[in-house]
Amino acid sequence: MAILERRGTGAVAHLHMNAPERLNALSDEMIAALQSEFDELRETSSVRAIVISGAGKAFCAGHDLKQMTAGRQNADGGKAYFKDLFDRCAHMMQSIRALPQPVIAQVHGIATAAGCQMVASCDLAVAAHGTRFGVNGVNIGLFCSTPMVALSRNIPRKQAFEMLTTGEFIETERAEALGLINRAVDPEQLERETFKMAEKIADKLGAAVKIGKSAFYEQMDMPLAGAYEFTGNVMVENMLYRDTEEGIAAFLEKRPPNWTQD
Amino acid sequence: MAILERRGTGAVAHLHMNAPERLNALSDEMIAALQSEFDELRETSSVRAIVISGAGKAFCAGHDLKQMTAGRQNADGGKAYFKDLFDRCAHMMQSIRALPQPVIAQVHGIATAAGCQMVASCDLAVAAHGTRFGVNGVNIGLFCSTPMVALSRNIPRKQAFEMLTTGEFIETERAEALGLINRAVDPEQLERETFKMAEKIADKLGAAVKIGKSAFYEQMDMPLAGAYEFTGNVMVENMLYRDTEEGIAAFLEKRPPNWTQD
Amino acid sequence: MAILERRGTGAVAHLHMNAPERLNALSDEMIAALQSEFDELRETSSVRAIVISGAGKAFCAGHDLKQMTAGRQNADGGKAYFKDLFDRCAHMMQSIRALPQPVIAQVHGIATAAGCQMVASCDLAVAAHGTRFGVNGVNIGLFCSTPMVALSRNIPRKQAFEMLTTGEFIETERAEALGLINRAVDPEQLERETFKMAEKIADKLGAAVKIGKSAFYEQMDMPLAGAYEFTGNVMVENMLYRDTEEGIAAFLEKRPPNWTQD
Repeated sequence: MAILERRGTGAVAHLHMNAPERLNALSDEMIAALQSEFDELRETSSVRAIVISGAGKAFCAGHDLKQMTAGRQNADGGKAYFKDLFDRCAHMMQSIRALPQPVIAQVHGIATAAGCQMVASCDLAVAAHGTRFGVNGVNIGLFCSTPMVALSRNIPRKQAFEMLTTGEFIETERAEALGLINRAVDPEQLERETFKMAEKIADKLGAAVKIGKSAFYEQMDMPLAGAYEFTGNVMVENMLYRDTEEGIAAFLEKRPPNWTQD
Repeated sequence: MAILERRGTGAVAHLHMNAPERLNALSDEMIAALQSEFDELRETSSVRAIVISGAGKAFCAGHDLKQMTAGRQNADGGKAYFKDLFDRCAHMMQSIRALPQPVIAQVHGIATAAGCQMVASCDLAVAAHGTRFGVNGVNIGLFCSTPMVALSRNIPRKQAFEMLTTGEFIETERAEALGLINRAVDPEQLERETFKMAEKIADKLGAAVKIGKSAFYEQMDMPLAGAYEFTGNVMVENMLYRDTEEGIAAFLEKRPPNWTQD
Repeated sequence: MAILERRGTGAVAHLHMNAPERLNALSDEMIAALQSEFDELRETSSVRAIVISGAGKAFCAGHDLKQMTAGRQNADGGKAYFKDLFDRCAHMMQSIRALPQPVIAQVHGIATAAGCQMVASCDLAVAAHGTRFGVNGVNIGLFCSTPMVALSRNIPRKQAFEMLTTGEFIETERAEALGLINRAVDPEQLERETFKMAEKIADKLGAAVKIGKSAFYEQMDMPLAGAYEFTGNVMVENMLYRDTEEGIAAFLEKRPPNWTQD
């Protein structure tokens, strides 16, 4: 059985992490499998939204500590392996943001350390009540320095700092209030609600969502004037899409758009 | 009847968008009228706070799609017109921030697309319960790329992304919780509460508010040390105002200040 | 009696501002005393968390207005003194962030102007119900320009702007919802809860918390790719600590870590 299952053949792709005995840890193999799917999905324009979920008790419990510990046997005490591991993991996390399609984390059980980073790195997240989120590496002497990059771009600063230095978990409702997830739902509704969101997005004009997602993150780091100049050009390009012309015409004529999605 | 009414003659200026049949759309004419008022208000030091409201069912429903569609008749398919339109609109939005006076959006009914951007672009916003906020251009194939510049500087990232890609509306209470508005009030209290806030600000020392508003946005994009160096100098300048000397003296002597507001 | 008491001899240092008759104002003497303690604590590796509290009715009510007014007697109307004062104060505030140890504000009563800035500048804050927070300098004609540097990096923009321009106070619960503090507690539980948080942090591996705190603020101002490259290297360094190796081994062996904390 594959460590990462690719499900769904339509406009919504579903990536299902399948290493429940390891709480879907981000082992070398899991990182490689995710990266490989992301690289393929980037080129698959028929896919317009992506859902990531995990099998078993946890969404994802972070790095694979046994594998990391084994790396210490290397002549350099693991230094080169660790560097390479964090590079591959960071590249995978940034690939989520670089994908043209919105990516939704479907979260349950546990999302800790790099698993919490993955939730923060996705564009959107839906989580079941009862899920525990944490960046608790500090409890074992390993500060969650890479996870905090994503976390601190999702929730307010003092709240991120508290999670990082106390190692305490927060529950789903708190994660929602802080902005780490979009919606808290009943566990039995989790998949249904996540896919409802994914399908809603997949129903939009893919080209518009694509140009918009990319611009969203790019403009965020710009000063205001630069952000407006940049997004003004994005709007002009978007206005000139044939499907956008049709979408606006359909709206003015009070009928559904007839998109080619080409 | 003017498309934009200027009301109030005292320290609070009131701009009332008056194209209810078009839901106060940001047509070429509306953008020009707002810009013209902003340009004049910038030089009017007797005005110390500004309120923007809309007539009819909506605060503002965004760009004028009929006018934009007409622009497609141009030889270039509208490209130059769209570019110019988004430039003028972005300039108008940034003028709100560049004004020396705090600007409060008085919001009711609907605030969508560039109308939601306007709420986000104002320094402050008070909204009636029952108002619907959205950046729903994606529903017609036109991603709200320029509105997101302002929106993503007001609310957390995942929540902004959800609004932009699902096209879903949020209600007043949610807008307040996310930080898009300052206060949710009963519809019949909307104007009263908005003006209460405006008058409270107009009662302050105008020169202090002016130097503070400008510094607020400028320091925000600076690294911490630079922000402190910059605002330290602002504080020194502020300390040397004659009216500030009087304000501090009055406070220490437990009496109201006698400001010249010159 | 010292204007600033240093209490505690263990892993948690306690700085207690002790000028209750002046609401613990940040006078020249108080700023110097805080700076001096921070400079010493920076080098004291046995201290792994710091709590700051205030004696009397208020945590801290900001600058010492009488002292500042006296400065106006100088030949230059106080200009050089004010510049120097704001420089020293900003340096003290930034020293909190530069300290290797997490710093927790234990807040009660009143935290206004530079006192509110101090809460915002601490890494963490616990506050008693009934505390009033404000950046109310605008009420006396002195916009809280330096306090807003810290405040606007803690709470959303429109909410910060409202506090700054209306001069209105917010209560503890609102401060918690906005992100200015981590936790609202009963007044009689304030010290207990604050020290519980401090001790929890002091129980962690000090070297990991130290490298993590510093990286937290540094990565925040970086673009995403740079932040990941930087923190990846921090993680590698952290992995190579002997105590971290022990912490991970202990976790895998389900036993408490035996840290040397060297």
